[in-house]
Amino acid sequence: MSRRRSWWGWGWLDQAVTPEQTRALATSVAARFARSVEVRSPPTLAGLTLPPPRVAAPRLLAHLCSDDTEERAGHTYGKSFRDVVRAFHGQLDHPPDLVARPTSEPDVVALLEWCSSAGVAAIPYGGGSSVVGGVEADVGGSYAGVVSVDLTALDRVVEVDRVSRAARIEGGALGPVLEGQLRPHGCTLRHFPQSFEHSTLGGWIATRSGGHYATNYTHIDDFVEAVRVVTPAGIVQSRRLPGSGAGPSPDRMFVGSEGALGIITEAWMRIQDRPTWRASASAHFATWSAGVQAARAVAQAGLFPANCRLLDASEASTSAGVVDGSTVLVLGFESADHPLEAWIDRAVECCADHGGTVPEGVRAASTEGTAGAWRSSFLRAPYGRDAIVAMGCIAETFETAATWDRFDELHRAVVVAVESALSSICGGGSVTCRFTHVYPDGAAPYFTVLAPSTHGSQEAQWQQLKEAASEAILTAGGTITHHHAVGRDHRRWYDRQRPPIWAESLQAAKRVLDPAGILNPGVLMDPPPRQT
Amino acid sequence: MSRRRSWWGWGWLDQAVTPEQTRALATSVAARFARSVEVRSPPTLAGLTLPPPRVAAPRLLAHLCSDDTEERAGHTYGKSFRDVVRAFHGQLDHPPDLVARPTSEPDVVALLEWCSSAGVAAIPYGGGSSVVGGVEADVGGSYAGVVSVDLTALDRVVEVDRVSRAARIEGGALGPVLEGQLRPHGCTLRHFPQSFEHSTLGGWIATRSGGHYATNYTHIDDFVEAVRVVTPAGIVQSRRLPGSGAGPSPDRMFVGSEGALGIITEAWMRIQDRPTWRASASAHFATWSAGVQAARAVAQAGLFPANCRLLDASEASTSAGVVDGSTVLVLGFESADHPLEAWIDRAVECCADHGGTVPEGVRAASTEGTAGAWRSSFLRAPYGRDAIVAMGCIAETFETAATWDRFDELHRAVVVAVESALSSICGGGSVTCRFTHVYPDGAAPYFTVLAPSTHGSQEAQWQQLKEAASEAILTAGGTITHHHAVGRDHRRWYDRQRPPIWAESLQAAKRVLDPAGILNPGVLMDPPPRQT
Repeated sequence: MSRRRSWWGWGWLDQAVTPEQTRALATSVAARFARSVEVRSPPTLAGLTLPPPRVAAPRLLAHLCSDDTEERAGHTYGKSFRDVVRAFHGQLDHPPDLVARPTSEPDVVALLEWCSSAGVAAIPYGGGSSVVGGVEADVGGSYAGVVSVDLTALDRVVEVDRVSRAARIEGGALGPVLEGQLRPHGCTLRHFPQSFEHSTLGGWIATRSGGHYATNYTHIDDFVEAVRVVTPAGIVQSRRLPGSGAGPSPDRMFVGSEGALGIITEAWMRIQDRPTWRASASAHFATWSAGVQAARAVAQAGLFPANCRLLDASEASTSAGVVDGSTVLVLGFESADHPLEAWIDRAVECCADHGGTVPEGVRAASTEGTAGAWRSSFLRAPYGRDAIVAMGCIAETFETAATWDRFDELHRAVVVAVESALSSICGGGSVTCRFTHVYPDGAAPYFTVLAPSTHGSQEAQWQQLKEAASEAILTAGGTITHHHAVGRDHRRWYDRQRPPIWAESLQAAKRVLDPAGILNPGVLMDPPPRQT
Repeated sequence: MSRRRSWWGWGWLDQAVTPEQTRALATSVAARFARSVEVRSPPTLAGLTLPPPRVAAPRLLAHLCSDDTEERAGHTYGKSFRDVVRAFHGQLDHPPDLVARPTSEPDVVALLEWCSSAGVAAIPYGGGSSVVGGVEADVGGSYAGVVSVDLTALDRVVEVDRVSRAARIEGGALGPVLEGQLRPHGCTLRHFPQSFEHSTLGGWIATRSGGHYATNYTHIDDFVEAVRVVTPAGIVQSRRLPGSGAGPSPDRMFVGSEGALGIITEAWMRIQDRPTWRASASAHFATWSAGVQAARAVAQAGLFPANCRLLDASEASTSAGVVDGSTVLVLGFESADHPLEAWIDRAVECCADHGGTVPEGVRAASTEGTAGAWRSSFLRAPYGRDAIVAMGCIAETFETAATWDRFDELHRAVVVAVESALSSICGGGSVTCRFTHVYPDGAAPYFTVLAPSTHGSQEAQWQQLKEAASEAILTAGGTITHHHAVGRDHRRWYDRQRPPIWAESLQAAKRVLDPAGILNPGVLMDPPPRQT
């Protein structure tokens, strides 16, 4: 029997936080916020009543489509805090009418043909881990219905080219599924977003996913060698090339297209040998500012660490057990080719130049066990959020990127805005920060919010917090998203961020690729006016 | 008095090959091809009769526009072999009617407004070094006239952000002009295409230029932090960001747009500290194939050399003085941050693993003098081509990129096709190869052709050679261009290479940005049907 995923919360049912764990966490949260919290039970499928499907699949596609309640409920939202809150409280007013599971590219073509001709919106759905409303079935407009197109049956690594270190992989392959197929070849895509277990290659490409590595080749953008995309107007296949100067890159139009321009059925991806050398160190700083300067020095040194994760004092305490108020910079290098002493030694020197100390020294050739333990904890974090939802509180993250010259002001403005909003809206709570990625010209800070709330108020209160954060980010020169994508939730700020005339040209491109405007309507741009 | 550029050949008049040097070279070429060559004199401006301008600038723009013969002749073509041959022989049937030199962004806006309303084609012109027909004034169609928009007066480094290592630079700044303004800040863009002295930032961005560094950050694509583009529909300004996940990248639509979507008036560019540490070595291999494998090993090792230039035996002889038939891999590392022993030592080990020997050993901290001498010879090469034109022979280059798995076959097919064409078309000549860039998943080979010909036959014979090369490249899975761009000369192959439906969507985007279709017509796509 296959493993079951939670239809309302994060991940695998067998990995979910237990009622006992939830109660224990609730006690701790209640103590932290000095108020009582009410733990409610998760919803049950039996208690759900979904609106009946408005459309039926045509005969030839019926075997791919389901109107099963669990399927529809599980494909109604992504997995943002807001999504989990709504699902937890049984708010499923706009589920997809059908969930389609194509098993081949011709199935995808046929589904989009039907949707285009019948005026049915098609929501490309990979692992469903969107935290920005990217797979939400409530698309508005005058569509006859909505089909969630679940691509996880297209999950094969079709070809491995060991010489070029590249692999042709189907778009619906979840992280562990594709890594499992690459492992026998000694290779890895080495792309580990936090959603790794519950997101797909096609989803990573469509959302410009960032892996958990900190520098250089880590964004999915740089791993794409060629894409294959089914659009309602036909199939787009780019050429496998290590580099090209032939006009604007076709791949780069689909990287970040969020399902609005086509469905990525396949891609040639740059892969890597599995690393055999490792070196790591953690540097402690008396101030956040000193840590930021050290991270910048490392980012600009041309050393390309795999990890360069700056934790503010709060996160250093909760994530790294450093409770003396230090800011901590976690450094790590990995290589399949060479030992890394020269690299880590110089990175540690950069830290020392900015007052950093390395209490435990450099650990060369640190074991996979340590990295594995950290990764396991990293991947497990979103399960905890379900427990926070169950106790009526707020836990969510948001992220951005900005150039170094603006970073201090951005960080200050965001923290001030969110702390002020937390105080006035929730009467307390915290916002903490770490770096997920660093660049020679800037950093990507990742913020975590934890706040008291009550059942019934969570969604609206989070929305106010999110608006305060997003306004501060935009005003301070950041991007509305560094790797979570735009979806429906970031549209308002995205529309201000992107150049307006360029947006019109993207819309024109969409009209060619998706003339009926059925692909993920409302994401990135408004649906084109319906053809009548 | 300002330095004058050749209107028909490469570069500065005061750097041109002298008649004595040309005669000496002719003797050597004649001996090599065992046939006599006829050296002709370059054309004179006094001998030119250009067709009269078909349009006059409106009163408010008249001060920016010139119909001077030298200006028009000098802006008729780029600087491909074919261009130089045509200009050398006085074939200037379709010069631009006017050459405009805007001195501000509002000038650019006003020029495009006039061109759009008057049906005049506008050819964005940076340094004019295109070798693919990218700035050619013969655009066909039913335009009232053609204006070459020379942007070199927009040449300032406007702002330098030392903290983020970025600079805001105007699009018309030639290489030495922008480096001269960065130097006092201790910075460099470190982008040195062979056309460096005669090409501009805007041209590099528009053509997806490749610098002379071999790995990692070397393509202009990766240095662009934000762009500012004047389109007939308005100004597009993207946000300065070190990274972003907010939809498809607007910058990446303009990187490679070759003047067809707008004029890049400004960009925020990632810059670097000037390198202070260097290490280099040259490895010799008994066979080309062993050298290719070593280059691949270095490219896949994660070492990121600044130089990783593989020279075949012919090029090793002419460029590196290695006359024993060896293939040579020239390796170099540069850093502004740290000594490079560990890097170069490991790269040399990779070579040894594939049978490479390093006769002169590693030169750590090699002097700028050596690099400077090489760069000077590199930048000087195109001047010699003018002499080849004057003696009625053929000298030209072409380039591509392909994944490693296809590389051996591509190299073989291209050499066979071109040697066969040389034999049947020219009765002799040579094609040689080096790598300009290497990637983890492939390489960019650069081919040089030298062949006997006669005045009057050069252009047609080169065209046949070029077709043979381009067919072989496309068939073997390469790109029609890795960094020279598409222009008008590569259109036929580009149209086969790019996904057709994607091309339609790009055309739709152009219709939004350039509704009258006046921008660089015929480049990347056919001009849209004229509005009447």
